[in-house]
Amino acid sequence: MSENLKICSGFRFAGVHCGLKAGDALDLALLLSDCPAAAAAVFTENRFPAAPVVCGRKQMAAGDKIQAVLINSGNANACTGDQGEIDVAIVAEVLAAALELPREQMFISSTGVIGEPLPVTTILRGVESLVESLDDDAFGGPALERAARAIMTTDKSQKTVGIEVETSLGVVTITGIAKGAGMIHPNMATMLAYLLTDAGIEPQILPGMLKRVVDQSFNRISVDGDMSTNDTVLTLANGISGYSLSAPADLEAFEKGLLKVARELSTMIVKDGEGATKTVTIKVTGARHLKDAEIICRAVANSALVKTAFFGQDANWGRIIAAVGYAGVELKPELVNVSFDRVRVVSGGMRDPEYLEADGAAVLRQAEFTVKIDLQSGEDEFTVLTSDLTHDYISINADYRS
Amino acid sequence: MSENLKICSGFRFAGVHCGLKAGDALDLALLLSDCPAAAAAVFTENRFPAAPVVCGRKQMAAGDKIQAVLINSGNANACTGDQGEIDVAIVAEVLAAALELPREQMFISSTGVIGEPLPVTTILRGVESLVESLDDDAFGGPALERAARAIMTTDKSQKTVGIEVETSLGVVTITGIAKGAGMIHPNMATMLAYLLTDAGIEPQILPGMLKRVVDQSFNRISVDGDMSTNDTVLTLANGISGYSLSAPADLEAFEKGLLKVARELSTMIVKDGEGATKTVTIKVTGARHLKDAEIICRAVANSALVKTAFFGQDANWGRIIAAVGYAGVELKPELVNVSFDRVRVVSGGMRDPEYLEADGAAVLRQAEFTVKIDLQSGEDEFTVLTSDLTHDYISINADYRS
Repeated sequence: MSENLKICSGFRFAGVHCGLKAGDALDLALLLSDCPAAAAAVFTENRFPAAPVVCGRKQMAAGDKIQAVLINSGNANACTGDQGEIDVAIVAEVLAAALELPREQMFISSTGVIGEPLPVTTILRGVESLVESLDDDAFGGPALERAARAIMTTDKSQKTVGIEVETSLGVVTITGIAKGAGMIHPNMATMLAYLLTDAGIEPQILPGMLKRVVDQSFNRISVDGDMSTNDTVLTLANGISGYSLSAPADLEAFEKGLLKVARELSTMIVKDGEGATKTVTIKVTGARHLKDAEIICRAVANSALVKTAFFGQDANWGRIIAAVGYAGVELKPELVNVSFDRVRVVSGGMRDPEYLEADGAAVLRQAEFTVKIDLQSGEDEFTVLTSDLTHDYISINADYRS
Repeated sequence: MSENLKICSGFRFAGVHCGLKAGDALDLALLLSDCPAAAAAVFTENRFPAAPVVCGRKQMAAGDKIQAVLINSGNANACTGDQGEIDVAIVAEVLAAALELPREQMFISSTGVIGEPLPVTTILRGVESLVESLDDDAFGGPALERAARAIMTTDKSQKTVGIEVETSLGVVTITGIAKGAGMIHPNMATMLAYLLTDAGIEPQILPGMLKRVVDQSFNRISVDGDMSTNDTVLTLANGISGYSLSAPADLEAFEKGLLKVARELSTMIVKDGEGATKTVTIKVTGARHLKDAEIICRAVANSALVKTAFFGQDANWGRIIAAVGYAGVELKPELVNVSFDRVRVVSGGMRDPEYLEADGAAVLRQAEFTVKIDLQSGEDEFTVLTSDLTHDYISINADYRS
């Protein structure tokens, strides 16, 4: 955890082992606000939404304020039918009783294997120690870290970001925690993220703001092109700072801060991509339409052959060109330029006459670099962050459940 | 090569090493008809078509008959600009001179690395020995095998199929050769296939027939979701059998035979998929629209997580459900059933109450099996053949050019 991590006032955290994961790995997390918070959420677009997603959508539609978030790892409570939703209600009920808070202010998330019934009694046994450990550590730090660890599945490290935002009223804080390392895709896959702030934000402003932020962050990363049943980004604004933001300049500054936190968490997710050794920015410029830029960008970012070439540190630009070509967008091949960082590789659809393979290879040996594809046909552009496809990805996913 | 392989009369074959591949690996193939043949072709839809694809399209548009096909491996002649097309013309010119045939009847294909200039002089030096070795072996067999080997890139074995078709006039023969093991996708990626027949077919009938056949065969396989710059399926009908097919029943029997050859070659390509250890049929049934069935079928067949689970022999049906869900098709989750061969795994969007994991795992241990996804919402269905995603896929593609 960074020393510069800023932790919101008015939130407490906990993470314990309840028995969903093997050994003594943390598997149950609690994020608790000191008061009911304005809430907004963006959920997976998967047509098999998990039970906690179905329940969470109903809470958001009802405009419920949220005070506590309980997250379990080890079981996704997905494809579990009506019983899955009943299980969410039971967990929410027991948590509400333990916290002595209204049940509708409990928000539940799950992540893990699909299709197994949620082990409700195991979770319920953990709720008491979870609530107790909140009191152990009222000021964040280690408790936040335990919560972040408790929501991990194939993640190698916990993901937390905290920043301060200056407003005309005073300084507010935004703290984010997230998990996700595989199945990451345009539409936020097996990804959970919680963006907490002590700023006061009008509940009706929050959903639109979160949607814009998610579109510019979590929806621009790609690890393997799959999308999960459980993806959730939740933001809570509890107003404990005493600063209720309403001036346009303040709201703009806050939204920028929220985007910064979301982007840093997104980058952490790509860097922790299952088996990933490279973080690659794919940037398409000069498109006639934004949609064209996006389609081409995602085709390149999701190409198994391109991602494997990154792993091999092979400056095989032909695979990039092939992916641009099969994306299905009308383009003029003879105008397309490609660069690796500052090394021009392709000019006018062909190998640049000055290009030396050694220069391209030197860029690809770096842990981070940018592939820029300029279509030279317009003004629109799109960027996606992706990773390489490696032996470890196969090992992790061939053996995940065993 | 199968002992039952039927080789068309009126075609001769050759395969030699000219120096495009390392060592003495065969890298130049010739397929020669005894007379000009009616021709039709289907090419890649990639927006960066390779030079031989551009030239081949022009020949087909001009309605040229084709008598000789020269194919080189080791270099794709893609992203090579105007010089690439000039190089195709030079190779065609020299081949035509060596065979004493009209240049417009020469059809050229290339496969291999993208973006390197075609080593024309290396190829030209090989043309003479190529034409000479045609005479060594006038009756197919070993010469056909050499030709099939000479077009391979990452393929582990050559791919040839030959069958006889009974018609009202007499027996005609169809012989196919193909290459392809990676980048295989819906729209026929890095795949070359040549379907040769001694039947006589009207040139204006052939393109429509080939299109239907390709849609039902090469366009229904998936290895890694990429699509190449060079894909080509060419069919030649030289009429040497003396049987010109025109009766509807004869044409139907012939088209069935052509589809059989194309499907067998497609299956060989999936089985030889880079690093593949499993051949899996994904079958979606009960869709409201054919397009819905196709979209879901391809989403599952191309999912990196699903394909890795197949490799791990992990009956992780949750990943299949997740892929069905993110395909973007409206569906009723509570109606969806999934089976592995005859083992019902999912009923009504949830784990089937009778399902035992051991039964699912037993199916996945087989080298070949079927995943059936029944949407129970209509009558349409779609099938795609796919493979698993393995460590060897990564090794092959991370190191392909080194």
